[in-house]
Amino acid sequence: MKSHNIIVIFGVTGDLAKRKLFPALNALDNRDELPSDTVVIGCGRGEKKKNIFETLDKKLRENSTYLRVQTSNMNHFLKLKEKICSIKKSDKSILNITFYLSTPPSSYKDIISNIIKSDLNKENSGYSRIVIEKPFGQNLETAKKLNKLLKSGFNESQIYRIDHYLGKETVQNILVSRYSNLIFNALWSKDYISYVEITAAESIGIGSRGGYYDKSGALKDMFQNHLLELLCLIAMEDPKENNPESIRDEKIKVLKSIRDINFDQHIVRGQYVESRGRNGEEYDSYRSSEGVENNSKTETFLACKLFLDNKRWKDIPFFIRTGKRMPTKVTEIVVNFKKNKNIFSSIDESNMLIFRLQPDEGLLVKFNLKKPGKKKEIINKNLEFHYKNLSNKFNINSYETLIMDVFNGDTLLFSRSDFVEMAWKIVDPISSAIKRNKLKLFSYKSGTWGPKNANDVFRNHNTWRYPCKNLVNDGEECEL
Amino acid sequence: MKSHNIIVIFGVTGDLAKRKLFPALNALDNRDELPSDTVVIGCGRGEKKKNIFETLDKKLRENSTYLRVQTSNMNHFLKLKEKICSIKKSDKSILNITFYLSTPPSSYKDIISNIIKSDLNKENSGYSRIVIEKPFGQNLETAKKLNKLLKSGFNESQIYRIDHYLGKETVQNILVSRYSNLIFNALWSKDYISYVEITAAESIGIGSRGGYYDKSGALKDMFQNHLLELLCLIAMEDPKENNPESIRDEKIKVLKSIRDINFDQHIVRGQYVESRGRNGEEYDSYRSSEGVENNSKTETFLACKLFLDNKRWKDIPFFIRTGKRMPTKVTEIVVNFKKNKNIFSSIDESNMLIFRLQPDEGLLVKFNLKKPGKKKEIINKNLEFHYKNLSNKFNINSYETLIMDVFNGDTLLFSRSDFVEMAWKIVDPISSAIKRNKLKLFSYKSGTWGPKNANDVFRNHNTWRYPCKNLVNDGEECEL
Repeated sequence: MKSHNIIVIFGVTGDLAKRKLFPALNALDNRDELPSDTVVIGCGRGEKKKNIFETLDKKLRENSTYLRVQTSNMNHFLKLKEKICSIKKSDKSILNITFYLSTPPSSYKDIISNIIKSDLNKENSGYSRIVIEKPFGQNLETAKKLNKLLKSGFNESQIYRIDHYLGKETVQNILVSRYSNLIFNALWSKDYISYVEITAAESIGIGSRGGYYDKSGALKDMFQNHLLELLCLIAMEDPKENNPESIRDEKIKVLKSIRDINFDQHIVRGQYVESRGRNGEEYDSYRSSEGVENNSKTETFLACKLFLDNKRWKDIPFFIRTGKRMPTKVTEIVVNFKKNKNIFSSIDESNMLIFRLQPDEGLLVKFNLKKPGKKKEIINKNLEFHYKNLSNKFNINSYETLIMDVFNGDTLLFSRSDFVEMAWKIVDPISSAIKRNKLKLFSYKSGTWGPKNANDVFRNHNTWRYPCKNLVNDGEECEL
Repeated sequence: MKSHNIIVIFGVTGDLAKRKLFPALNALDNRDELPSDTVVIGCGRGEKKKNIFETLDKKLRENSTYLRVQTSNMNHFLKLKEKICSIKKSDKSILNITFYLSTPPSSYKDIISNIIKSDLNKENSGYSRIVIEKPFGQNLETAKKLNKLLKSGFNESQIYRIDHYLGKETVQNILVSRYSNLIFNALWSKDYISYVEITAAESIGIGSRGGYYDKSGALKDMFQNHLLELLCLIAMEDPKENNPESIRDEKIKVLKSIRDINFDQHIVRGQYVESRGRNGEEYDSYRSSEGVENNSKTETFLACKLFLDNKRWKDIPFFIRTGKRMPTKVTEIVVNFKKNKNIFSSIDESNMLIFRLQPDEGLLVKFNLKKPGKKKEIINKNLEFHYKNLSNKFNINSYETLIMDVFNGDTLLFSRSDFVEMAWKIVDPISSAIKRNKLKLFSYKSGTWGPKNANDVFRNHNTWRYPCKNLVNDGEECEL
């Protein structure tokens, strides 16, 4: 039976399509991984402009059409439907349709409603799937509304909320590492782990995203989605089966187990201020960025200490940190093991397992060995694995992975409705406390790891790890 | 108080002194680690030859004396005593004396007896210590005799039986790795480990050592000492305290726990035969070597499976393998972990922790990760640490370590009397079975990992790991 793979991109003239979707489709096409007869229908608000598809590969370009679709115009959707149906060559051929909402979230409501009204959500011979980009609401209330709308026409299995973080090889590898390695799996609990750190740091500032960012801050931009997703992958219980829904079931249980956060003691917010680098470079302040209010109280840095009220992680803290204008761009999860209590252990450091998600993707175990030439001295060194050393070079972009997952109906790496809502349930009270000025905002200089009191959340638990860009250069000073 | 450090080398004109002892003393002197006022007294059978000390550094050479000492000649020992006493500059100065027996074992009896007869074993102001090189006897009976003789004049703490293997950094690091790393220590038992392999392979043949080797074979040359020592370090229980005697106490308990060996099924002996390499190179047979009987039944390869009858290692096999003319020179200990039983584990390989003792000294953990770009494929890769990548280059020879240990009275890395005897107790029955032709001898070609049936000892436990020279080249074919 002939099947057609139709991808409808709303907002096709936008930045995301150009920077992410087209390159991903090209790459998949080049590797012959795209379903045959893939057709791209690009939708935009305006008349067709020339060269919209010019960066698409020839083969894909030939199968591409532009349609003017004003999101509130039902007629335009009926034309879209007509276009889609025209692709069907015989009664027996199958139409698999993916709607990709590559538009500002403000358009979601109209687009989703009109897809549903035009019955394009209905799965007849083939599937109908919808892909949306974060933010999935701005709080619990708006997220619920969005989910309600989606569910009025789509089953959960048809909905794909993209968090591109989850498409990263290194993120996908977290569960494989936990579950296919006895040496890690056997140690995965409070009995052996003393605390976990999750860091997502960017060296750049807010750039031209001020308009969006000033309304979100690190809390909604990073913590509510990426960081809570990572937390769940690290902390979740064994899923009943190795399938997406079992795993997503376990992830949400992690969110549900998060103990009420002590805002005063366990959250530190920061905002970068004007500063000078070591060599006299001048860095502007967040408040001077385009689109940011000049007395903005939005945080560009957030550090947080969480506890999970379950058996596995009882009283084990999870430290989460994210910020702009940090000393380096790095995302990593650091599993800090307890010290081994024995007669030799007086001077050794504790072991760490580090998932380096970016850059220099890899896995790192910090272990102790005898200092060569010394009888009683112990040094802490790295057991290292770097993806870049793999003989088969891989360079698979998150979007490639995630788009193929949509085509294959693999929901694992996408955020489920209940997850999104639960994440907002955690974030909303923080957000509300911020609004009521109950959470202080500290300044920090560009090129530092945030306000000094970010360490206060640690108290009796050591201190943050300060990673540098490359695993092998750990410990090097690296101010901007 | 002035103290003198006197090292008396018997067999000073021999190979060991030239190749190992002098270079070690030079290196220690260069690093200013030797006790001040170190005096070398070299003893040999003949008249003083010129240039005996020419390879010693100037400072040491100036403090060196040659003495003619025929081992059975008591007068010569009295002269030696005279010489030693003459070093004492005042009544209050301390003489610390180390006797280093760098002679064939056939001379041990005379030398030891005469040291004792001349009261040089007595510790007055300073210490008197004796260092002997293996073999420590040729069987339990001769070992006991040697020990009895030693103990007739020396306390155990004065006796230093050198096994240079134990002086290697990587060997010394085994216990540190086990005890200062929770991630290893927590997994150190039958609950997590499925089997252990110990391999000591040499690529060279017997060379000119045929005369000695043909009487020993791999069993006495390697298994009785080096390999059993490594076994003990890997398998021993937690010592009561972090001191040499507590640790040596635990090592001997391992030997005592070795279950009676099933010779037929669990020992495989091999001898290399004439063969051709891949590129037509010709390799001679063991039997054609100088000093080897032309119908010799001595093994140049030995593989053995052992069980330890204790709680920690119940029914966990230890596979031990040593041979000449192997594909590569390598000594390593491979700790094979069990598979992790979980929903993801159908296709993964088990984890390994590999202590690479030589060459390319390091630590290696084999772990599973998701194959990049694939959803369900798992690949097995290495977490690696290489000593050679340490920023502070170290190049500490075993002999340097061990000589300093003698001066410092640190007995940890030396074989205790009871250990030597217990090791012979294990080896003697094998040796006797060999003599009675109860243990088959198989041929193998140079550049192979021994007779094919060396794998028979494994039965239900996988197969040997076939390491190549460099950790990073694992899996490369590497025929001679």
